[in-house]
Amino acid sequence: MANYSIGVDFGTESGRAMIVDVADGREVATAVYPYSNRVIDEKLPIAGKEIVLEPDWALQDPEDYIRVFQIAVPGALKQAGIDPADVIGVGIDFTACTILPTKADGTPLCVLPSYREHPHAWVKLWKHHAAQPEADQINETARQMGEPWLDRYGRKISSEWFFSKTLQIVNDAPEIYAAADRILEAADWVVWQLTGLETRNSCTAGYKAIWSKSEGFPSKEYFGALNPLLANVVEEKLGTVVTPIGQRAGGLTEQAAAWTGLKPGTAVAIGNVDAHVAVPAATVTEPGRMVMIMGTSTCDMVLGKEEHTVPGICGYVDDGIIPGFFGYEAGQSCVGDHFAWFVENCVPAEYVRDASARGLDIHALLEEKAARLKVGESGLLALDWWNGNRSVLVDVDLTGLVMGMTLATRPEEIYRALIEATAYGKRIIIEAFQNNGVPIHELVACGGLPEKNKLLMQIYADVIGLPIKLSASKQTPALGSAMFGAVAAGSAAGGYDSIYAAAQKMARLKDEMYFPNPENQKVYEQLYAEYVLLHDYFGRGENNVMKRLKSIKANAKK
Amino acid sequence: MANYSIGVDFGTESGRAMIVDVADGREVATAVYPYSNRVIDEKLPIAGKEIVLEPDWALQDPEDYIRVFQIAVPGALKQAGIDPADVIGVGIDFTACTILPTKADGTPLCVLPSYREHPHAWVKLWKHHAAQPEADQINETARQMGEPWLDRYGRKISSEWFFSKTLQIVNDAPEIYAAADRILEAADWVVWQLTGLETRNSCTAGYKAIWSKSEGFPSKEYFGALNPLLANVVEEKLGTVVTPIGQRAGGLTEQAAAWTGLKPGTAVAIGNVDAHVAVPAATVTEPGRMVMIMGTSTCDMVLGKEEHTVPGICGYVDDGIIPGFFGYEAGQSCVGDHFAWFVENCVPAEYVRDASARGLDIHALLEEKAARLKVGESGLLALDWWNGNRSVLVDVDLTGLVMGMTLATRPEEIYRALIEATAYGKRIIIEAFQNNGVPIHELVACGGLPEKNKLLMQIYADVIGLPIKLSASKQTPALGSAMFGAVAAGSAAGGYDSIYAAAQKMARLKDEMYFPNPENQKVYEQLYAEYVLLHDYFGRGENNVMKRLKSIKANAKK
Repeated sequence: MANYSIGVDFGTESGRAMIVDVADGREVATAVYPYSNRVIDEKLPIAGKEIVLEPDWALQDPEDYIRVFQIAVPGALKQAGIDPADVIGVGIDFTACTILPTKADGTPLCVLPSYREHPHAWVKLWKHHAAQPEADQINETARQMGEPWLDRYGRKISSEWFFSKTLQIVNDAPEIYAAADRILEAADWVVWQLTGLETRNSCTAGYKAIWSKSEGFPSKEYFGALNPLLANVVEEKLGTVVTPIGQRAGGLTEQAAAWTGLKPGTAVAIGNVDAHVAVPAATVTEPGRMVMIMGTSTCDMVLGKEEHTVPGICGYVDDGIIPGFFGYEAGQSCVGDHFAWFVENCVPAEYVRDASARGLDIHALLEEKAARLKVGESGLLALDWWNGNRSVLVDVDLTGLVMGMTLATRPEEIYRALIEATAYGKRIIIEAFQNNGVPIHELVACGGLPEKNKLLMQIYADVIGLPIKLSASKQTPALGSAMFGAVAAGSAAGGYDSIYAAAQKMARLKDEMYFPNPENQKVYEQLYAEYVLLHDYFGRGENNVMKRLKSIKANAKK
Repeated sequence: MANYSIGVDFGTESGRAMIVDVADGREVATAVYPYSNRVIDEKLPIAGKEIVLEPDWALQDPEDYIRVFQIAVPGALKQAGIDPADVIGVGIDFTACTILPTKADGTPLCVLPSYREHPHAWVKLWKHHAAQPEADQINETARQMGEPWLDRYGRKISSEWFFSKTLQIVNDAPEIYAAADRILEAADWVVWQLTGLETRNSCTAGYKAIWSKSEGFPSKEYFGALNPLLANVVEEKLGTVVTPIGQRAGGLTEQAAAWTGLKPGTAVAIGNVDAHVAVPAATVTEPGRMVMIMGTSTCDMVLGKEEHTVPGICGYVDDGIIPGFFGYEAGQSCVGDHFAWFVENCVPAEYVRDASARGLDIHALLEEKAARLKVGESGLLALDWWNGNRSVLVDVDLTGLVMGMTLATRPEEIYRALIEATAYGKRIIIEAFQNNGVPIHELVACGGLPEKNKLLMQIYADVIGLPIKLSASKQTPALGSAMFGAVAAGSAAGGYDSIYAAAQKMARLKDEMYFPNPENQKVYEQLYAEYVLLHDYFGRGENNVMKRLKSIKANAKK
């Protein structure tokens, strides 16, 4: 008799439930629920009321998350045609940092009539970008007070993270802050809804909420310096118990069993994050092999046995990805988005007609044309900063650059230069790890891009000079969550006792691999040297023209 | 009874004859003859023979020039319906440097059966770019020998110019060089065909053939150092008599009268160059007012009473534009071409559909969208070097750059940034003149672009901080030639005794003017400072990345 685990992956636009065979990781069935209220970035979804949001806000409706359990999970079960009793565990992963204020019993403030019309009562989605002033204050205060944890995060806390968003509530809506008994990650909130138990996972606590296993959260003095109301935020709103990922959070409540069609008591794993949960699903449970989760932006994850400060990475967390290792995270903020921008803004009508006549996607046509170019033939070089630079410069005010154009320059040459720029940016990240005590000798790619663009993968191998393997699953986060669900169940229930054991059986790579081509590598060495020169000139303060242009732009828009 | 003059303007693709009323410059009739053999850049136009040209070659057929006299001039006369006896003068202007080898009687070598199949026997058009090795040798030898004339040309002789092209004949085809009794500008050759007299005009001699009124041509020692065969090139192939522009070359021969339908003996002016002849046609016959001839590339002309070395300009020639003044020339190699490249390569299908639905030219649509942007709002900055930089860096190996892109950047923002980049480049040229003793207090624009793009003109006024007037004529070169034709006739025959007098009556400006907008100027001051910083960083050797990319590109194409 087979055992199954369900991974539930909460994305930006929808939630996905995937049923996986615990024995071999076979993906048996998948169902998706697109959130009815999607991303709320214009006005609150309250009938008959016009409550308009400020620019840069991005909210969600927590009831949409419950509907994923009510609709996607039963849908997947029905599709699979299996006995719910054979499902031994459930794991979830979520976008992060996505947080909400709740009452002591977990009721979101935004479902209560008295708070429903207040934007700060709703879920703040990861891409809510309105807390930049708060992030600036958090960083400035930390620098002034010499806070030791700043080094763990490349010396910069993002406006997307937990305390930036929380401080915005304190500053803008102290009454909401006061009304909130708890403020927590949506990842932990959905686990609470399944199990009836409030837990805090080590992954979001570490990467987004300035927690570490050895030092805990920042001090009361520090929080008090930000705002006296915030001094006791940990004790009052978070709690000090943080559970390592890989643990069992609890069992399904009767209510959650009714929502999902699963058995009450089914094991539920501690909450996790979409990118991080993909690491074991890409077979990586040991140091030396970096996982690249490549989509609109890219997350890079690597494990280390030792603690090292790596300048410019997003952060590192003990037990953050795989128990027993430091999980290092870096990222590039503009990868798939980069190519999408190009396709939307810079592709001539002739190419669109050509692609359409041949039944090709426009990306596929550009890839075909770009693949015919020899390395260096375009004479172009780009800096991949259309959305700022996450690692290793940690600077949202940097902008894109392309150079080397002549009157003979063609669109596919620019397209290729943009791909190459992201590869150079990746190599800078890898060298930052390698030069600071975190070895990397192999890359494993997952996410949407590697499937779609072989040229991109070959360019990455050639630029970086390392072999690249590909995750076999197209849904690595959901698979990873299912793996953690099987671990929560444990071997006695037909699951596994560790994520290592689960990865051995449930995670797989494709046979296909990309190896560096020595001829290409030679030319890319030269081009990479030019990239580094420009990267440092524009990115490290020698010529801050990009920031000055942004400031001129901000003034022009006033 | 009215008097008329005919201006014949020999362009790259066609020749144009325009009949002008001498009294007031009214343009009475125009006829165009498109050259039957156009630009010869693939194979010689010899039936049944396949004589293929090397890359970068660009030739023409001198018989096409004669057909302009035989077809366009009678065509214009017929259209005007005037008595040919009322035409008192003919002036011509030509592209330059466009040269051909002839026998002593002016017969082009390429019409003789024994040389017809030899590419070097044909006319080398201005854009024949195959003589770069010769130009390099000319410059290197001049630097080694400390030739004083190098300063007059921004310390660089172009591959397009007279001795680069002549040395190519010497090097590649000494038998053609030996067979040529004369080598001359096509401008002077067509005047020879009209008058039966060989003359050499001071404009092409000065700007293209290293001649100066006070110092003549370079020395025999210098030419001998280039190649012993070239030592006596001046005496053997050119002659030492150079006639200032503004003079009468001679009268129409019986044969030329038969071609054109004009009276034998009609006054013919000394030959001239299309860009230079436009200056008086744009009303400029005095210092301080720079003429910008704006098309695919741009020529900038300004007169000075004194001789000054201005680093990075194309050259200055005594009597080169208007007798009695030093004529200073600078230029930008990529202006209209820049925008054409953008439209061809970077405009999305949606814009093309939109323009077509509204019956707009795509440039007009982009201008409309770009005009809605405030100065600095795009956050973009570009270097206008898609075709290298003519002035003031004199470097064909520089390439284009755009920076400041974000995921929200739109095509019209890039389009506007390209326009702005050419305006910053123009300001650099103007400041080079101003800082080196050649004052400029007003700009006069002519050519195709100013007519078409009001936004571009306003941006130029705002960036440069000077008022811009527009030439009233859409055909300034043909008008200028007609003015010189009237001067060749002289006042006794109903014309004028000087180009100043002719300009007073025959040249006009539009009522429309562009004035700098002080609000815009303030922001452009900041943006220009950023442009200068990048211009010097990439253009003056601090980071030669553009040259290194070009060299990587050249290797990749091998």
